[in-house]
Amino acid sequence: MRPLNRQCTVSSQSVKVFAPATVANVGCGFDVLGFALHEPGDEVVMRLNNSGKTTISRITGDGGKLPTDPIKNTAGVVVDAFLAHLGQRPGVDIEVHKKMPLGSGLGSSAASSAAAIFAINELMGRPLSRAQLLPFATEGERAACGSAHADNVAPSLLGGFVLVRSYDPLDVVPIPIPKDLVATVIHPHIEIRTEDARSILKKSILLRDAITQWGNIGGLLTGLILNDYGLIGRSLQDVIIEPVRSLLIPEFDTIKRVALECGALGCSISGSGPSIFALSNALPTAGRIADAMKYALRQVGIDSDVYISPINEQGPKVLG
Amino acid sequence: MRPLNRQCTVSSQSVKVFAPATVANVGCGFDVLGFALHEPGDEVVMRLNNSGKTTISRITGDGGKLPTDPIKNTAGVVVDAFLAHLGQRPGVDIEVHKKMPLGSGLGSSAASSAAAIFAINELMGRPLSRAQLLPFATEGERAACGSAHADNVAPSLLGGFVLVRSYDPLDVVPIPIPKDLVATVIHPHIEIRTEDARSILKKSILLRDAITQWGNIGGLLTGLILNDYGLIGRSLQDVIIEPVRSLLIPEFDTIKRVALECGALGCSISGSGPSIFALSNALPTAGRIADAMKYALRQVGIDSDVYISPINEQGPKVLG
Repeated sequence: MRPLNRQCTVSSQSVKVFAPATVANVGCGFDVLGFALHEPGDEVVMRLNNSGKTTISRITGDGGKLPTDPIKNTAGVVVDAFLAHLGQRPGVDIEVHKKMPLGSGLGSSAASSAAAIFAINELMGRPLSRAQLLPFATEGERAACGSAHADNVAPSLLGGFVLVRSYDPLDVVPIPIPKDLVATVIHPHIEIRTEDARSILKKSILLRDAITQWGNIGGLLTGLILNDYGLIGRSLQDVIIEPVRSLLIPEFDTIKRVALECGALGCSISGSGPSIFALSNALPTAGRIADAMKYALRQVGIDSDVYISPINEQGPKVLG
Repeated sequence: MRPLNRQCTVSSQSVKVFAPATVANVGCGFDVLGFALHEPGDEVVMRLNNSGKTTISRITGDGGKLPTDPIKNTAGVVVDAFLAHLGQRPGVDIEVHKKMPLGSGLGSSAASSAAAIFAINELMGRPLSRAQLLPFATEGERAACGSAHADNVAPSLLGGFVLVRSYDPLDVVPIPIPKDLVATVIHPHIEIRTEDARSILKKSILLRDAITQWGNIGGLLTGLILNDYGLIGRSLQDVIIEPVRSLLIPEFDTIKRVALECGALGCSISGSGPSIFALSNALPTAGRIADAMKYALRQVGIDSDVYISPINEQGPKVLG
């Protein structure tokens, strides 16, 4: 993207921003579907100063795992890319407060990217729209994961349920959804590295499985837009990724079974796992699913966190 | 399906039914998407008699290629399956008038199946709904093509634009579409056998191509339902089937290019070809596309038929 060389009005000297965790893939939509949760998420505190450089002064909640070098940290990468685009070079200090687990399959790095790009845009007087911020945030994903995936960062930044129709050029489509749709997400306290979850996948798939998958993604989107919960439920099936990645998640089949028994429309792996999501059409159902999932994991000695959340239509927000 | 053993009221002794040609696959929706045209199509004349058996007394327009043996002809197969289901055995005579080219990629056998099942249901007093008739019509497709594809026969029988979400169980979803959507279809006078068009396809595809494809099918359905012509156009891309099958169609790239230059939203192969369809959002545009396509083929000495048709929401109809 060419530098703007635009003189922006700095609207304030500091800002605190929350950006939400996200569920990517959503069963049949590997690499192209995602939605935002109300919780958990990340907080970024950003301050302008006169240093002429970007610093990361503090990271909490990461167990010391994330780099404070701004050219290696996703938050620093997106801020520098954004400022280079504007053609401006104020000093920026960033605090990243991880309020969500790393490596959980809930888009931890995407939430930091989204919070950071939203925060610097606020500080610089909102020169760009959210849609215009998205390419910067996907660059943050490239820094964190090695590839510029958008299925977490797009819903984290834009809110709602999104389809990444294309990566080249980036084409993100907001999907209207039924108002009562609720997600239950369980994060088992085990770790799967995104690289491992990727390397377990084969580069080729059977055409007949792909046909099944694109029938289902078509059905899922049609069901979401037309408020057809029956169709959503029938379409929430993944015959390509879930059968492979679920091998990495202890008791996946049990958790999925109990979720469906409790009335879930469907249940699959969130992102690259180990978190698991279920969708339902009522908060009490989502609560029953949460209890049953957590109980199933506790039976085999695995602790977990559970989140119940309608789809977060807002995306990032300024706190305090 | 279990026999009904239901006593039906025979509503009349003869009926003449038209069922429409269809465009299957629709670019990115191989084996799962299809829509119906207003023309061309097939006509079936069906008469009840006291013979206690099904006969095919006449077939016109097929150049002698179709079998008159009712257990080998798609129309005979669907009628016998339907009557077995009802537990009744009247005599039935069928005339099939092919008003459309065979082996054209426009669902010729599906139109015969749809017309025949619609006609016998009319004659027997409409004991089944159109949705209930669909499994019989797909059996006709199995007789004609060796596999029970539904992406032609479902839109021919149900009308409109349909998604075949699943084949097992059969789950067909009607897709709401923009009212101004128009198809231009050109049938070059060359022949491709469905078996050849199938055998040229590989059994495996790259996962990354499948991801592109399911992004596009998601975009296409979203664009159709939300009346977003821009999104429809961006999504009408097939990176898996078209690059292979288009090799069998002379001047495919030229025809596609001129269609897009004339304002088509997208252009791809109809079914297994050699017919080519383009979608646009206005009848005058569809006309310009038709002229340009026909001219491009004439330049290389290939005659063609061209059809311009809004999506046919009705499906089969009783004539006369």
